Amino acid sequence: METIQSRNEALAAQLNQRLTDKRVYAVNVLGAPGAGKTSVLTGLIKALHQPAFVIEGDIESDIDTKKLQDLGIRSYQINTGGACHLDSPLIERAVDENPVEDCFLFIENIGNLVCPAEFMIGEHMKLLICSVPEGADKPYKYPLAFEKAGAIVLNKVDLMPYVPFDYDYFEKGVRFLNKAAPIFRMSALKGEGFLELADMLLCQRNR
Amino acid sequence: METIQSRNEALAAQLNQRLTDKRVYAVNVLGAPGAGKTSVLTGLIKALHQPAFVIEGDIESDIDTKKLQDLGIRSYQINTGGACHLDSPLIERAVDENPVEDCFLFIENIGNLVCPAEFMIGEHMKLLICSVPEGADKPYKYPLAFEKAGAIVLNKVDLMPYVPFDYDYFEKGVRFLNKAAPIFRMSALKGEGFLELADMLLCQRNR
Repeated sequence: METIQSRNEALAAQLNQRLTDKRVYAVNVLGAPGAGKTSVLTGLIKALHQPAFVIEGDIESDIDTKKLQDLGIRSYQINTGGACHLDSPLIERAVDENPVEDCFLFIENIGNLVCPAEFMIGEHMKLLICSVPEGADKPYKYPLAFEKAGAIVLNKVDLMPYVPFDYDYFEKGVRFLNKAAPIFRMSALKGEGFLELADMLLCQRNR
Repeated sequence: METIQSRNEALAAQLNQRLTDKRVYAVNVLGAPGAGKTSVLTGLIKALHQPAFVIEGDIESDIDTKKLQDLGIRSYQINTGGACHLDSPLIERAVDENPVEDCFLFIENIGNLVCPAEFMIGEHMKLLICSVPEGADKPYKYPLAFEKAGAIVLNKVDLMPYVPFDYDYFEKGVRFLNKAAPIFRMSALKGEGFLELADMLLCQRNR
């Protein structure tokens, strides 16, 4: 297990350098099943007005890749066939096989708030997508993903009137683990909150 | 990995026999983070009118155990400290250390729609909790949990008016994988749908 991890990390560092050399800014998108990762990416890419490529990670199905391609977004499907997270060899192969250059590369990881946070895959930052109906206690229960996030989206804020969600408790949990990551309140369904996240990513890329 | 799996399965079979001998009916509760596993268990145990014990699995925190104990439900916390699923040795220890006898034993697994489905932990059945805001495509993306479920709860149906959810598409996905498992539409928040699930569990236990 440790050998697999350290090999993965070494390859992740190489891949990160290769992507930087190709003027690619890579974002590892994490979140629970149904947090709205694909919907957030769709709105974000529209708001960015920049070339983008999406690698979609799923255990099975190509539902999300088809959704993106229907919207004219370049994307590539990885099916892990059971594995609970993406790893560096999978991403290296996807980068080799696709025209990933001078663009934002969004890598949508397997919907899983646990395992993907443990594996670097060549990214420049991790973007964590959570959502209001998941409840405000997620930072306390799944700390690693929150600790490692460079930015956090709280999606589905349009459901706030219908579910109990204590935002202060959520924020307190996040800040205990992560002082720096901005939290973006967003409704992918209503198309709200994308511009702020797009601005932040542009800033990060140009630093 | 295969050795770990097969050792786990052997211990799970032993543990299952031991629980049966103690007149315990064990339910392995699976679901994504925030699907409402603890809320469903709370309402279900109330509706069952039977002795029950809950083993709570979390990576960190004892939020759910405290919630249950405040309601007078006997429960015991396991923190995996990072591991993405419960396994048989963890459950064996919890059973040894607690008065688990002649009751329903609910084992709330780590919030994760992927890994927990791969590991038997001594259960008589798997209960899968999904929720409306997660979206109707989950059976297509996370097939194993749906395939192995003995019963499926679709929680948070009170949010149906506010989010896109195609029930027929959901059901079609479930039935492709699993012909037998009943689907219970439920709102833990509104206290709706518990009796039907309680009846089904009583039936299963008494078979």
